[in-house]
Amino acid sequence: MALTPKKPDLMEQVTNLAKRRGFVFPSGEIYGGLNGFWDYGPLGVELKNNIKKLWWQSNVRGRDDVVGLDAAIITNPKVWEASGHTEHFKDELVECKNCHRRYRATEKTEKCLACGQTEFTAPQGFNTMFKTYLGSTASEDDIAYLRPETAQGMFVNFRNVLDSSRQKVPFGIAQVGRSFRNEITTGNFIFRDREFEQMELEFFVKPGDDEKWHEYWKKERLGWYLDLGIKKANIRVRDYEASELAHYSKATSDVEYNYPFGGWAELEGIANRTDYDLKRHIEASGKDLTYFNEETKEKFVPYVIEPAAGVERIFVVLMLDAYAEEEDKEGIRSVLRFHPKVAPVKAAIFPLQKDEALVKIARGIYGDLRSLWNVQYDQGGSVGRRYRRQDEIGTPFCITIDFETLTDKKVTIRDRDTMKQDRILISKLKAYLSKTLN
Amino acid sequence: MALTPKKPDLMEQVTNLAKRRGFVFPSGEIYGGLNGFWDYGPLGVELKNNIKKLWWQSNVRGRDDVVGLDAAIITNPKVWEASGHTEHFKDELVECKNCHRRYRATEKTEKCLACGQTEFTAPQGFNTMFKTYLGSTASEDDIAYLRPETAQGMFVNFRNVLDSSRQKVPFGIAQVGRSFRNEITTGNFIFRDREFEQMELEFFVKPGDDEKWHEYWKKERLGWYLDLGIKKANIRVRDYEASELAHYSKATSDVEYNYPFGGWAELEGIANRTDYDLKRHIEASGKDLTYFNEETKEKFVPYVIEPAAGVERIFVVLMLDAYAEEEDKEGIRSVLRFHPKVAPVKAAIFPLQKDEALVKIARGIYGDLRSLWNVQYDQGGSVGRRYRRQDEIGTPFCITIDFETLTDKKVTIRDRDTMKQDRILISKLKAYLSKTLN
Repeated sequence: MALTPKKPDLMEQVTNLAKRRGFVFPSGEIYGGLNGFWDYGPLGVELKNNIKKLWWQSNVRGRDDVVGLDAAIITNPKVWEASGHTEHFKDELVECKNCHRRYRATEKTEKCLACGQTEFTAPQGFNTMFKTYLGSTASEDDIAYLRPETAQGMFVNFRNVLDSSRQKVPFGIAQVGRSFRNEITTGNFIFRDREFEQMELEFFVKPGDDEKWHEYWKKERLGWYLDLGIKKANIRVRDYEASELAHYSKATSDVEYNYPFGGWAELEGIANRTDYDLKRHIEASGKDLTYFNEETKEKFVPYVIEPAAGVERIFVVLMLDAYAEEEDKEGIRSVLRFHPKVAPVKAAIFPLQKDEALVKIARGIYGDLRSLWNVQYDQGGSVGRRYRRQDEIGTPFCITIDFETLTDKKVTIRDRDTMKQDRILISKLKAYLSKTLN
Repeated sequence: MALTPKKPDLMEQVTNLAKRRGFVFPSGEIYGGLNGFWDYGPLGVELKNNIKKLWWQSNVRGRDDVVGLDAAIITNPKVWEASGHTEHFKDELVECKNCHRRYRATEKTEKCLACGQTEFTAPQGFNTMFKTYLGSTASEDDIAYLRPETAQGMFVNFRNVLDSSRQKVPFGIAQVGRSFRNEITTGNFIFRDREFEQMELEFFVKPGDDEKWHEYWKKERLGWYLDLGIKKANIRVRDYEASELAHYSKATSDVEYNYPFGGWAELEGIANRTDYDLKRHIEASGKDLTYFNEETKEKFVPYVIEPAAGVERIFVVLMLDAYAEEEDKEGIRSVLRFHPKVAPVKAAIFPLQKDEALVKIARGIYGDLRSLWNVQYDQGGSVGRRYRRQDEIGTPFCITIDFETLTDKKVTIRDRDTMKQDRILISKLKAYLSKTLN
């Protein structure tokens, strides 16, 4: 019987599970953590790596019209002047006059949440790029910024990529990497962070073809999430109203998820950035970033469609969407029903008992599977308990070696979701797992 | 006939090739770049990803005694106080009194390299951690640092990993990620950067077992580089003299490479960090970071062996080590003799001519192989020219579809190094490539 927890509980349960099982820890936790920063543990790093690998396979390697890039987090600060970030990348901040707690102006309530007083300072603009200084003196000449988005790395390398990669418009440049925003308020676990990882694609098209490509990428990206196993009822695409658009955008749509906190909100943004960024960089750098079509002899500044996702949001959505509690004859089990391609651990191998012959076979299978997938070996406690441990972290398969194995060369393979058990030959194990995992 | 370029030329040729073919660009190049920061282009990101994947496979996924971690770049600043970085992570800086050019004190020459004058300021300590500020006011209370090493992320999460992962000493925690150092002098292409990517492993052992494990990791890491195809004559392990040791280290050895600039220098460091870091964090945090062995009832603070590699150094070493020029009957060819598992592009597919039937088969093969490996399709120019283009970026195999293919279903597969050509059935292509590439 399914006992899917109520939504506020869901968030708490997933957060606790993430900590307890080594998915996510507050950064520098032994010193009290740091607001908006997180460290990813052994299972968290595998889940993140799976998300990034699947995105890269789908958006770069699996396409012949997209190439990858990996730009520096700190770049020439003129990039941020040209892009408008130095001037415009601001939040409005208000402060409680009594206890000095700070709020985003848009999120301020009537009374301070901390002390209950009602007097606030006037809203003040505050640039949310993190600043640092190059060289040994912290002078204004030496200011540099941590990038607040990876996108500009693609724009400023547009010419370099064109000249070195033989791509023709329409084509895209894709990048996965950390970005930083000095958010006034963070929260909802890893939903809004100060340091986060983006997966952005800048897809360059001929002006006039932009609306068609915008539609294409909306469909493509929604499909990618459904392929990750996210429930259809929990995800949708929403087009922005004109009043919501950023100054560089002609049209933007969000892939939204129905979060247990606050309902529908952004998971990924898909923006038509027009020729805004390239034109700004042409103007500021004096470099020629136009595209010349040799066949038609047309010369133009491409428009850009940008699907921009965040690894941490996908991470939390995958956990929320996959989490379930179920009552069975042995009590309540918690299970993460991850799609096998997302699951941090693909299979767990158990000897039934700490018997020398069983352990030897189990370790042999473990060593063999480890060259292909991230798998675990576990010989502690009853098999039932070991199943529960694996269910909770979303491992699709558990493989048990018992005394019959010694004679029939077969193992028991148990499915996480159906809990059905099959006996199959050790020699057929790789092929059996490959069907689902590859 | 081999015409391996002389060493100073080699560096220049590799740097030019890296720029021209889209491996590495100066960061924000259209604005003049930024000293010590680089952007990696379409081929560079593939090469970096291969290096990281091979390291992770060998040091994490392929072992049952190492787990992964992915900590934040910015963490609680108390971490850096406890580790000693706030106090000790300094370079000595001198400045030319005439033109104000800055030098590391250890690298200063008699006369300023820029203006020829001989008067310098007295050496001055300068902390090379990049500083930033959290929140909206840049006050001393809000200082945070960009991590100068990933290692501390592993130390401060030692307890979290122990509690969530069922590991027992000896075991390791591994991490791949960006670090930042505000170097006074940078240079030699990507050899010394201000932003770089580390691959660090902290391997926790019982005190007394540390020297044995240090030897183990020295051998292991040297073997890893040889497996990447680096020439034995160009690589060695060198043990530090006592006078060279960092304050936290009992013994350190470098894997060194014979660089074309300056000869033997560090590629990777393998340090015995003792219990220095864990003890500092126990003292500063008040948390229990000791290890309790349940079988022997021993309680101790583990010693740590740390193999610490840099992605960019491996990147430049792989390029330098693989680069060759050769004279053949058509002139001089440049070739990167990358080990196939390192090569950014695994195979290139050419239709002999832009003939509809050939193109169709070629694109079919391209689509098929792309699901497994990073491959390229190229239909421009003579096949000889296409070979040269692929040789220069180190592609192990070129596959040509010609008119005979239409009847015999075979393609010509040409080996980068031997330039030997084989004809094999299209249906056997995947198996043929798998032998070398997997």
